Amino acid sequence: MIRPGQPRELWLTDTHQDQYGISLRIKKTLFRKQSAHQIVEVLDTEGFGRLLVLDGIIMCTERDEFVYHEMLVHVPLCAHADPRDVLVIGGGDGGTLREVLKHPSIRRVDMVEIDEAVIQASREFLPTLNTGWDDPRTRVLCRDGIEFLKTQRENYDVVLVDSTDPIGPAVGLFEEAFYRNAFQALRSEGLMALQSGSPFFDGDFLRSIHANLHAAFPHVSLYLAPVVTYPGGHWSFTFAGKAHGPLDGPHAERYRGRGLATRYYTPDIHHAALQLPRFIQDLLT
Amino acid sequence: MIRPGQPRELWLTDTHQDQYGISLRIKKTLFRKQSAHQIVEVLDTEGFGRLLVLDGIIMCTERDEFVYHEMLVHVPLCAHADPRDVLVIGGGDGGTLREVLKHPSIRRVDMVEIDEAVIQASREFLPTLNTGWDDPRTRVLCRDGIEFLKTQRENYDVVLVDSTDPIGPAVGLFEEAFYRNAFQALRSEGLMALQSGSPFFDGDFLRSIHANLHAAFPHVSLYLAPVVTYPGGHWSFTFAGKAHGPLDGPHAERYRGRGLATRYYTPDIHHAALQLPRFIQDLLT
Repeated sequence: MIRPGQPRELWLTDTHQDQYGISLRIKKTLFRKQSAHQIVEVLDTEGFGRLLVLDGIIMCTERDEFVYHEMLVHVPLCAHADPRDVLVIGGGDGGTLREVLKHPSIRRVDMVEIDEAVIQASREFLPTLNTGWDDPRTRVLCRDGIEFLKTQRENYDVVLVDSTDPIGPAVGLFEEAFYRNAFQALRSEGLMALQSGSPFFDGDFLRSIHANLHAAFPHVSLYLAPVVTYPGGHWSFTFAGKAHGPLDGPHAERYRGRGLATRYYTPDIHHAALQLPRFIQDLLT
Repeated sequence: MIRPGQPRELWLTDTHQDQYGISLRIKKTLFRKQSAHQIVEVLDTEGFGRLLVLDGIIMCTERDEFVYHEMLVHVPLCAHADPRDVLVIGGGDGGTLREVLKHPSIRRVDMVEIDEAVIQASREFLPTLNTGWDDPRTRVLCRDGIEFLKTQRENYDVVLVDSTDPIGPAVGLFEEAFYRNAFQALRSEGLMALQSGSPFFDGDFLRSIHANLHAAFPHVSLYLAPVVTYPGGHWSFTFAGKAHGPLDGPHAERYRGRGLATRYYTPDIHHAALQLPRFIQDLLT
C-alpha cells in the first residue's frame, strides 16, 4: 500500500523453489533486451550498486560479486603451479575474466559465452567487472561452450564453468559427457572449477554433479563461500583435478608470489572453504 | 495479482536497511501474542518448517536453526576444558539450551530470557528445539539479562548471548558495561560468545562490538557461519576469553570425547569459521 506523499518502492524478488525469495530494492532499469537466449537486464539497486538479471534471476551485483568471482577463480588458479591457458565457459558479466587476468602467468583466456547480449550489457553498464575484454590475452568466442569443448584436446591448464543454474541451455554443463570433454581439453596437470549451486536448497543437484564429475576426474572437492544475493546466501563450487587436489600444492606461496589483490580470497580462506559442515559431508556420501 | 483459480500465496518478507529482503512462503499463523516486550509469532512455512518471528523479524526456522545454535554454543564450549556452569542470556526459542546440554560436563544452565511469551510459544510450537527446559540442570529466570549479570561474580564458565539485534531492550547487550559485567561473572578460564550480526550489512556495528569487547576481554575473535534465513545468509559470532582464545586447546579431542552429535559443527569447521575473508579483516583493523 502506498500512502499519500510516500514515494513508490520497486523491489525485484528472485524466488527459489516457491518457498524462499531474495528481494533487492530497485531504483531504475538501465538496460533490457530479449536476446536469442534470454531476457537480459541491468538494474540500478538502492544498496547493491548495479544488478545483472537473466530471465528474472539475479546473476550478480556490483557490491557482492567479488566473493563469487574470486572463489571461482583463485581456488583452482592458486592450486595450479603455472596456469597459462584458461578456458571460461559462460562468464559474460566479465568478473571471472578480471580475476583470471590477475595471475601474471596467464597468456591466453578464451571466453566462450553463448549470449553476446550479456557481454554487451555488462561492458556498458558494469564497468568494475569489465576490465579484461580489451586485454591482448583475451579471446572472445560467442558460441555454445558444450559444442566448443568437444573439439579441444589438452590445450588448457584450467577450465572454469561460470554458468547459470541447470535450466535451459545450461543443463548440458552439469552432465557427465561435458565433464569427460573437459578432462580431454585439459593438460596433464589441468584443473576445473564450476559453480555448483546451493548445498542447502539443492542437495540432490549437488550430489548428481559430484557423481558425474567423479566419473570423469580422479580428484573432486566441494568448497563453499557466501554469496549474499544467491538463494540461501551460502554457495558451493566444485573443484576437479586430473592429477591432484586443491590442497596439494603451496597455494599460499603462489598467492603471495603472484601478488594477488583480493577482497575475499586469502590462502587461509582457500583451506577453510574446503572444510565441509557435517550435513554437506553427509549429502555427498 | 491472483488469477482466477490460482490459490492465494502468503509471504513474510523481512527487510534489512530498506534495500534487501528475505521472504518465506507461509502456510498459516500458529501463534500470535503481543507480550510486554514484542509481538511474538509462530508461523508454519512452505519450505522451512515452523518459523519464530519477533516484531516481524525472522528469529529462526526449524529447518536452518541448527547452524546458528551449534555455532553459538560449540565453538566456546569446545574451547573450554571443563564447562560446568553456563549462563544463556536470551535464547527463549530453546535451541541454545538444547546444544549446551549435549556437553556431558554441564551441571547447570541458567536461562535468563526477558520475555516469557517467547519460551511459551517455542515450547508449544517448536518441539525439536525445546528438549531442554525440563532437564534438572536447567534453571529459567524470566528477567532482564543486563540487570542479572551485574550481580554475578565468577560463577560461570561460559556466558552465551543469544539475543535479537541491538534494537530496543537488546541495545545494552552490545555495550562495554555489559561486557565488563560478563567478564566479572566468569571464572578465570571463562569464555563468552554472542551473535554479532551480518559482516556484510552491519560492518560499523561489528566494529563497535569488537571495540567494546576488547575493552573488557584480552582475547576476542570473530567467527562466521551461514544462516540462510538471516539477512545476507552470512552471519558473525564473536568469541571472548578471559585467559585464552578459541584455538588454544584440543577442541577436536573434546568434540569427540564428549560424543557431540551435530549437523553443522565439526572440529574442522571450528577452525575454518575463524578464518576471515580479507574484507572482514579490513573491517576490524
